[in-house]
Amino acid sequence: MSAAPMPPDALTELRDAMRHFAAEREWERFHTPKNLAMALSGEAGELIEHFQWLTAEESAALSPPVREEVALEMADVLLYLVRLGDVLEIDLAEAARRKMGINAQRYPIEQARGRAVKHDRL
Amino acid sequence: MSAAPMPPDALTELRDAMRHFAAEREWERFHTPKNLAMALSGEAGELIEHFQWLTAEESAALSPPVREEVALEMADVLLYLVRLGDVLEIDLAEAARRKMGINAQRYPIEQARGRAVKHDRL
Amino acid sequence: MSAAPMPPDALTELRDAMRHFAAEREWERFHTPKNLAMALSGEAGELIEHFQWLTAEESAALSPPVREEVALEMADVLLYLVRLGDVLEIDLAEAARRKMGINAQRYPIEQARGRAVKHDRL
Amino acid sequence: MSAAPMPPDALTELRDAMRHFAAEREWERFHTPKNLAMALSGEAGELIEHFQWLTAEESAALSPPVREEVALEMADVLLYLVRLGDVLEIDLAEAARRKMGINAQRYPIEQARGRAVKHDRL
Repeated sequence: MSAAPMPPDALTELRDAMRHFAAEREWERFHTPKNLAMALSGEAGELIEHFQWLTAEESAALSPPVREEVALEMADVLLYLVRLGDVLEIDLAEAARRKMGINAQRYPIEQARGRAVKHDRL
Repeated sequence: MSAAPMPPDALTELRDAMRHFAAEREWERFHTPKNLAMALSGEAGELIEHFQWLTAEESAALSPPVREEVALEMADVLLYLVRLGDVLEIDLAEAARRKMGINAQRYPIEQARGRAVKHDRL
Repeated sequence: MSAAPMPPDALTELRDAMRHFAAEREWERFHTPKNLAMALSGEAGELIEHFQWLTAEESAALSPPVREEVALEMADVLLYLVRLGDVLEIDLAEAARRKMGINAQRYPIEQARGRAVKHDRL
Repeated sequence: MSAAPMPPDALTELRDAMRHFAAEREWERFHTPKNLAMALSGEAGELIEHFQWLTAEESAALSPPVREEVALEMADVLLYLVRLGDVLEIDLAEAARRKMGINAQRYPIEQARGRAVKHDRL
């Protein structure tokens, strides 16, 4: 009896969907790592614009329509990040796990508790 | 007979790991949506710096050490994105799938083929 | 009797200094508008990193060393902006004056008073 | 005989105009350094979006309408930069001159010629 196929990981699924989307539109030549990094940065700028005049409290209590706009800006960042990972052949999930390990070392619990300072100033 | 537990999705796994990481360090009060959007944008800026003087060709042929630095910058963007999704209770994968649907409508294959212009200029 | 030479405007002076700096180092070929826009964006990311975990109040009461770092990040943004204006032959001061006029129309005093919302939502 | 009044420096003029603009609209409380750094970063993101899919050559040959949009995005960056300098009491022109001096030391002409690498890798 064969096992049911494993549902694909969301990052893998999005990577494949973006690859297909770009290929269908013959956009591969635009999708250089340089250009994708720019596009990601532009989307991060759009995301930040939603928050720039809000207090911390307001930013945690977005109205449903703003929250929806924010969700779609975050989606844009994720899609370009996934696409950049694809063209650079970087495994995003693996890199993120690795970075979490580095952060755990850089920010030991005792020293970092309650302090938001860069690791080289802990 | 119980089924083997499904491996967690990478985005879910990273969300939980970041949540734990922040809680252990009592960083929740720093992790407002406003602050996390800023942190994400700062990391996008660090990512772009790796590419700013490169030609398109050079950006696609990074040396192994630069590629590794780029992978870790991308990890930073992903980690803040995942954390922002957590505090805003936004399902990133769902938002990304939804945005792909919107993009498919905005950029019909025939009109968009080979053209990198914004949808409102197609 | 000849008039005393007018002191050059700071933006003009910086433009000329950057032009000379780039020429001496044969950096003109790196200074495409695309690359300079990226460099500017990267510096904006570095600037924002200084503020990401601060409260509004803390951001207005920087310690002298942090304020000095912030001043130099702002200088980087200005220098790339001036250089971008030079290669695109855009008169920054004139564009800024023009934009202020547009903003005055978009944000009429009565409607905009005390409200930080985008003009299309006033 | 009194001298003709010196024309104000463009940066000073823009600083005063922005200060007046904010005061008239009672926007001072929104204009914290943190918020202004975010707004600047958002505008840098809008600027970069104009260039993300262009080749280096295309970025140097913008059509007049695109060039005009770019000029106004650059104006936005400058205006927020000037306003940030005002609220932080940072003299932008002085900081930029100082940064140019630092750059001249970091990038000696002989070593830097024709090479776009960060100073710590020269």
